[in-house]
Amino acid sequence: MHIDIISVVPGLLEGPFSHSILKRAEEKGLAVVRVHNLRDFATGKQKQVDDYAFGGGAGMVMMVEPIARCIEHLQSQRTYDEIIYMTPDGETFDQPMANSLSLKKNLMILCGHYKGVDQRVRDRFITKEISIGDFVLSGGELAAAVVADAIIRLIPGVLNDETSALTDSFQDDLLAPPVYTRPAEWDGMEVPEVLLSGHEAKINEWRFEASVRRTRERRPDLWAKSGLGDSETSKRKK
Amino acid sequence: MHIDIISVVPGLLEGPFSHSILKRAEEKGLAVVRVHNLRDFATGKQKQVDDYAFGGGAGMVMMVEPIARCIEHLQSQRTYDEIIYMTPDGETFDQPMANSLSLKKNLMILCGHYKGVDQRVRDRFITKEISIGDFVLSGGELAAAVVADAIIRLIPGVLNDETSALTDSFQDDLLAPPVYTRPAEWDGMEVPEVLLSGHEAKINEWRFEASVRRTRERRPDLWAKSGLGDSETSKRKK
Repeated sequence: MHIDIISVVPGLLEGPFSHSILKRAEEKGLAVVRVHNLRDFATGKQKQVDDYAFGGGAGMVMMVEPIARCIEHLQSQRTYDEIIYMTPDGETFDQPMANSLSLKKNLMILCGHYKGVDQRVRDRFITKEISIGDFVLSGGELAAAVVADAIIRLIPGVLNDETSALTDSFQDDLLAPPVYTRPAEWDGMEVPEVLLSGHEAKINEWRFEASVRRTRERRPDLWAKSGLGDSETSKRKK
Repeated sequence: MHIDIISVVPGLLEGPFSHSILKRAEEKGLAVVRVHNLRDFATGKQKQVDDYAFGGGAGMVMMVEPIARCIEHLQSQRTYDEIIYMTPDGETFDQPMANSLSLKKNLMILCGHYKGVDQRVRDRFITKEISIGDFVLSGGELAAAVVADAIIRLIPGVLNDETSALTDSFQDDLLAPPVYTRPAEWDGMEVPEVLLSGHEAKINEWRFEASVRRTRERRPDLWAKSGLGDSETSKRKK
């Protein structure tokens, strides 16, 4: 997978892609992320990339011309499955969307900054608008990093233990159960006995019930979506 | 505001806090973010911070002892309003939560990694569990950066133009309207005439109507919450 990210603050993305699994994915040749500085596509001495909003109001707007130049430059090098714009009014990112994007070959992600990009950029170039949640960030950079991370870790071979991603929260509409590790007793707090029993069937049952309890308590919306409540005894998970 | 972030991959957070508004907030003395390497609180030659899950299964679990040592060390220096754990099964982060957290003085944020932290950490220390959305990341670091960014930009004085944050999406349960900047005509695409008219009342009306249209189309859930649809003509926004 190849991901191109367009940003006016490329330095902000230095850390996320040179550490942890994202670095490992690149070293293994499974995913490449390239961050492009929008300012390199600006013209004029000032290398201007933003200007005041037509109609007035606070906040600057990212100009259409440098973005168009950058996108067209990248398009001359490869064909993109999606040209994504990170924006709070986009479609809300979730695990099914991450699963689907993880199957793509080439993605371009444009990070908004300031008050956002000129609407004509969205009308002309963008094929998918994504929001990571109902909150506002100072720019789309962290949101783009979140999307890239969620996607790349799903590519087979990126995680050391491939089965690990399959037992995450959301992959089965249930939250993950509590986890414990050594020592079995810490400052008077003990690990649930069943987890130390070595009895695999009982452990699986305990985990499933803990998942169900946590999902019902914390996320009744997910619980309803899971359909497990409809016939709780018969639909026991394997 | 003072934010302490605990991580096993502190390098991942180098970029986000040394650029853009987060850097400016620190230079102005309005917010300080410190990233702490959990490995500094591990004992033994291996500086071990994770171990296999009790009960078996894929993925490593972050051990209680180094985390307890790190949290207690930080608590000896200041009193925290919240000790936050970033986890997909936490409460979903949104703009009201960002607004409320932006009023706090000292926050600690623990980033999970691998399969998560030993449940006893959560039971003993954590006062608030936050998820940035229904998707799984390779660690809590990017999620912590998202939360810090969303909070810090709301602190008065951090944004250059304070009114800018107030016209963002979500602050009034409506998505923001389209924005445009120079040139007025680009490659055959024109800016809506009203925005060039200089007629403030008409511009505000156009923006409000565009916000409403976008919210109804893209986010019927937000639209219902806004209450504006109940009596659309009488509840016209100023």
